[in-house]
Amino acid sequence: MRDMKKRLDSRTIETYRKMLNEDGSAFAERFPGLHSNEQYQILRSFGREEQGAVFEIISPEAFAQVFKWFSRDEQLELYGHMEEDYRMRMLERLATDDVRHFIEPMGDGAQKGILSKMSATKRRHMEELLQYDRHSAGSIMRKEFVSGAPEDDVATVVEKLKDDTTTYEAVHFVYVVDHDQQLVGLVALRDLLIADGSQQLKEICDTSVHTVTVDMDQEQVAHIIQDYDIIAVPVVSADNELLGIITVDDIIDIMELEATEDMGELTASRGTTDMNISPFRAARKRAPWIMLLMGLGLITANVIGAFEETLESVVLLSFFIPLVMDAAGNTGTQSLAVMVRTISTGEYQKHGLWRTLGRELGTGVMVGAASGITIITLILVFYQELWLAFVVGISLLLTLSVATVIGTILPIIISKLKIDPAVASGPFITTLNDIIGLFIYFSIATTLLQI
Amino acid sequence: MRDMKKRLDSRTIETYRKMLNEDGSAFAERFPGLHSNEQYQILRSFGREEQGAVFEIISPEAFAQVFKWFSRDEQLELYGHMEEDYRMRMLERLATDDVRHFIEPMGDGAQKGILSKMSATKRRHMEELLQYDRHSAGSIMRKEFVSGAPEDDVATVVEKLKDDTTTYEAVHFVYVVDHDQQLVGLVALRDLLIADGSQQLKEICDTSVHTVTVDMDQEQVAHIIQDYDIIAVPVVSADNELLGIITVDDIIDIMELEATEDMGELTASRGTTDMNISPFRAARKRAPWIMLLMGLGLITANVIGAFEETLESVVLLSFFIPLVMDAAGNTGTQSLAVMVRTISTGEYQKHGLWRTLGRELGTGVMVGAASGITIITLILVFYQELWLAFVVGISLLLTLSVATVIGTILPIIISKLKIDPAVASGPFITTLNDIIGLFIYFSIATTLLQI
Repeated sequence: MRDMKKRLDSRTIETYRKMLNEDGSAFAERFPGLHSNEQYQILRSFGREEQGAVFEIISPEAFAQVFKWFSRDEQLELYGHMEEDYRMRMLERLATDDVRHFIEPMGDGAQKGILSKMSATKRRHMEELLQYDRHSAGSIMRKEFVSGAPEDDVATVVEKLKDDTTTYEAVHFVYVVDHDQQLVGLVALRDLLIADGSQQLKEICDTSVHTVTVDMDQEQVAHIIQDYDIIAVPVVSADNELLGIITVDDIIDIMELEATEDMGELTASRGTTDMNISPFRAARKRAPWIMLLMGLGLITANVIGAFEETLESVVLLSFFIPLVMDAAGNTGTQSLAVMVRTISTGEYQKHGLWRTLGRELGTGVMVGAASGITIITLILVFYQELWLAFVVGISLLLTLSVATVIGTILPIIISKLKIDPAVASGPFITTLNDIIGLFIYFSIATTLLQI
Repeated sequence: MRDMKKRLDSRTIETYRKMLNEDGSAFAERFPGLHSNEQYQILRSFGREEQGAVFEIISPEAFAQVFKWFSRDEQLELYGHMEEDYRMRMLERLATDDVRHFIEPMGDGAQKGILSKMSATKRRHMEELLQYDRHSAGSIMRKEFVSGAPEDDVATVVEKLKDDTTTYEAVHFVYVVDHDQQLVGLVALRDLLIADGSQQLKEICDTSVHTVTVDMDQEQVAHIIQDYDIIAVPVVSADNELLGIITVDDIIDIMELEATEDMGELTASRGTTDMNISPFRAARKRAPWIMLLMGLGLITANVIGAFEETLESVVLLSFFIPLVMDAAGNTGTQSLAVMVRTISTGEYQKHGLWRTLGRELGTGVMVGAASGITIITLILVFYQELWLAFVVGISLLLTLSVATVIGTILPIIISKLKIDPAVASGPFITTLNDIIGLFIYFSIATTLLQI
């Protein structure tokens, strides 16, 4: 959570703005030399007119490299300010996965309008990519890669690499496909370099290739890339036809998204960490959860209501309601956090339910015992009420043990039932633990009162 | 949080175990063809004797590739079962960053013992790497890379690549350094491939290289690699001397760790998501937080105690303590989750404090109003108490608004003060919001009672 993202400082950005306004030729000379991400940081701070001036200076082909860094809303705005010819030349050069990301949410008419103006190859590629479901491997792969036949010799492939202009971004492998476009293997550029020009690809290619299928979920693709240290994984159809590749930089973005989703699930704030959405839209997403939880909260009111008699005779009991509730909620959420992360990273699958549950329950009993003894001491010191001290202390031990079990099991049940895992989020587990905790607390108090 | 990590199924693992025990030669033939990660998955399920049998079959040089996948505890155990000669040959072949990770936590004596048996080059590299602080770029970089002088021609570098045996893993760039080892630029293998054999590196190298300094924090390195889509970033000293490289696969592991840490901070469960640690150690890490929070929880008891008179006259008020508390806690945690993630991903830095705070407060007021109206209706329906309905409803509006502000501002203050951000974790914000929420609730109740 430390604040360390290296970004251009505002002075540098201001310098470029001034340069653009005062001395266009100096800007035209220096700006193109920047990394596309730096160009993006400068451009996003510019007003509409300044951005327009940049379109005059940067070719649409070069702008394609910058375009991909913008959020989709920003892309739409920029696109709106471009002239028709500029737009199409830029889209033509943009990698297919980035084009898909941009045009996929558009209406059918707008999409067709854009596709109809594309080159035949690009249109064919785009029509293919648009078929795949969101979040599938097909939806994030790109069609730009270099391939060769098993019989091609190294010199031929090198010539092909020289002529290729579509794989704008770094190429690290040549994919070897047979005449049916079936993937045979891949050749790392290093092996291509040290091979003899007359050697055939089939002699030097690595055939134990890890692939992903086009309908695989993007999170699974991320795990495979991670497990096998792959820089660009080939995407194949069910019958092993090479359809595209997914590069590690796209996967990094997906991993970040996944971590943010995990956190959203934990706090029922899913989909609202994007600072670009308005308070009203954020409230609309969060309010249903808060209100649903409030409905559940009415159960806590009923539990307390059921023990009204006990409470009326000892109002002091109500003082410790928050303390017991918080301890149960905190302990349950800790177990939940462990589950959410270990399920995501695959650690859970390695250890299995029983070992995980044993670890968490063991932890809960120990934390409960330590907390119970502490609170007994504290209440004796501050309130001098032996009876109250034991009610709270024993409640803590029991409640905390139960809370770890609920925090561990509930997310597993929910993930097995294939329910939206947001339901397993922290607040639900907290509320459930509250209900159980209050019940334990008042039951013990009532029992001890009757003795 | 979906369960999708692709792993070898237990049947495959069982097949290899049987093969090893019944027909060693079949195992020796098939096992080496697996990916090192698959070999790891099979080996970790083996018992000590079976692992010992594998040492006979797999050369230490090949085993180095598998070794890196194990956790450090598992590595120590495996290492303990290897013979001295096997150990040293394996370490000699293990990439320097992996060797550092393995020997860094050892005592001085054990470290020196291992270093003294290494080759001169490896020992020099290791002594250098061990100087750098944990979590710095220096501590995760590797010394295995291919470099050339600006005057070297392409053919010479290709020869160098052919002879090189240290960069076991994929090489994607050749780093160009001058006679003082200062980094001049880099050449992508693709450019090397399409260049003429007689061209000099300085003619084809890219000089606008993004580097990281050796003392930079690893999280910052991760952000740079992400922002600039770099596959292997050069690590340089303060005076631009090339010291090593950090590859994207190491960065992915760090990103995953960072996300897990974020979640730990959110739930005060930091350092306990590792399922390999025992319940006792997990309890020891978590109990202090739970108990500290319980100490704070005593304040909630005092707040309620301060309003004892009000509570004695209307015991019904205590029924809604959990509901008000939970709503405040949940809303505050949602804002916190937004902050923790947007600070980590750099989104917060883009938008700044006021816009973020405005968004969250706006959301809080709207969620508060919606919740307030809902609870007023529910209490009127279920309890027919107009007075109680308004106390709870107005409390919710005020408490939820305050909760978003606290959830937003507290993590920023704490990150500015450079306090351990675990202190900003969800439970603390929840407890703080509880105290404020209870105070608001009982103040409104007392005021309305007196009218």
